[in-house]
Amino acid sequence: MLDPASLLQTATHAARLGGDVLMRYYLDGVEIRNKSAAGGKSYDLVSDADIESEAAIANFLRSVYPDHELLGEESLSNNRTDAEHLWIIDPLDGTNNFAHQMPQFAVSIAYYHEGHPVASVVLNPARDDWFTATRGGGAFHNSRKVSVSDADSLSQSLLGCGFYYDRGPMMRNTLAAIDDFFSRDIHGIRRFGAAAIDLCYIGCGQFDGFFEFKLAPWDFAAGRLFVEEAGGKITDAKGDELKINPSSVVASNGKLHASMIEITSQRA
Amino acid sequence: MLDPASLLQTATHAARLGGDVLMRYYLDGVEIRNKSAAGGKSYDLVSDADIESEAAIANFLRSVYPDHELLGEESLSNNRTDAEHLWIIDPLDGTNNFAHQMPQFAVSIAYYHEGHPVASVVLNPARDDWFTATRGGGAFHNSRKVSVSDADSLSQSLLGCGFYYDRGPMMRNTLAAIDDFFSRDIHGIRRFGAAAIDLCYIGCGQFDGFFEFKLAPWDFAAGRLFVEEAGGKITDAKGDELKINPSSVVASNGKLHASMIEITSQRA
Repeated sequence: MLDPASLLQTATHAARLGGDVLMRYYLDGVEIRNKSAAGGKSYDLVSDADIESEAAIANFLRSVYPDHELLGEESLSNNRTDAEHLWIIDPLDGTNNFAHQMPQFAVSIAYYHEGHPVASVVLNPARDDWFTATRGGGAFHNSRKVSVSDADSLSQSLLGCGFYYDRGPMMRNTLAAIDDFFSRDIHGIRRFGAAAIDLCYIGCGQFDGFFEFKLAPWDFAAGRLFVEEAGGKITDAKGDELKINPSSVVASNGKLHASMIEITSQRA
Repeated sequence: MLDPASLLQTATHAARLGGDVLMRYYLDGVEIRNKSAAGGKSYDLVSDADIESEAAIANFLRSVYPDHELLGEESLSNNRTDAEHLWIIDPLDGTNNFAHQMPQFAVSIAYYHEGHPVASVVLNPARDDWFTATRGGGAFHNSRKVSVSDADSLSQSLLGCGFYYDRGPMMRNTLAAIDDFFSRDIHGIRRFGAAAIDLCYIGCGQFDGFFEFKLAPWDFAAGRLFVEEAGGKITDAKGDELKINPSSVVASNGKLHASMIEITSQRA
């Protein structure tokens, strides 16, 4: 197996390249907003940012590891998710926030060896916020080692959630699950809009749990390792192991996992 | 009338004093979290932060304007909301985020003259994010003049929302309104957890609208002026003028206001 520390260094450099692309578009936001109002070109521009960020990341990774497989949101469709060496890339998580000039979006990059995460980076370039993890090496927020919260009851918890693009049954199930969680007397629910960062907030002990009823693998591939290395747990909404496939996702500090699955398994 | 610029200077200094108190407690967060897990003393500590922040703000305002009335969340209950000179203070908006080490909370201070806002500050001390406004003088984010978005359809919008402490009908009405908004094809809904900041995001053009079915006057007193000075609109959920009372709140860039009220008036 390749050295996790050197994989992380590669991932970090790749994330910085992607983040630089995003910030170039982001700081030009006035133009984006105006075009949106003038007739809906904003998505073209956002899509340019996505694609250019992914290309920067992919080109760099290919230059370092020419024989590795890449899986990503934009052009890197890939059926070989069982490759020995697989990089899973989200060049822009939180597209909606990005398009609305909300500084809560991320580049997410993870390296998987034979289906298991080994090194990961989530970078919010607008806040220069770095979340890194290596298998067995712990989780770090801006170089500070972090761990999950010790809340052991939903009534002590702050939860994050996400809504998939679906505006029908899955959206209603999400609202119903929020209702269920409120009835368990949680402190509150948050919807920040960038799943990769939400997962890192669990690793940092800021969120006690998170759920979303559908995520793509690039949305959770890096955050998953961060949660696990910080001492938390991440599964699908039934409590089963995540695969490198679109899936529901429930993450927690571990102590709350069974209580969360009790609710999400009924609603997913 | 007192000079808005000098009122703002006073409000800004007061906010800094309050913010300094909050950051002292916030940076001591490890202790807060541990006590919480050990048996629920976290709210005592948070409450200490609230009270000490409010005292710092109130003492300073009284030293500058001994004859002004103060209305605030903690100890400054006041029935004289029709006072000629009234300062409305939230020493810690976003208590839940604060307690969970989420850097999304604020000090909110507004000066009202005969019931109308004249100067306001919202400060997120964890991000050194300043939102200031004076009547007729515009709205500023970190000294940069800002204005609301120009989205003219809900289908272009990113909306914020809040949940009141109620866990019964009002929570369900909020979820139902979210469902209604999704059915109008909004880009997304956000729940960041600090209403004063959410309102400022409308003034900055990041949110296109916001609603919450119950807020205290100190939650919206400062954000209200920020929204208005940035060119937006803020009313209760029926579209009626806000008073200095607990109320539902709908804020928007103006263009979306009627569309939002159409939904919120049915659910509030």
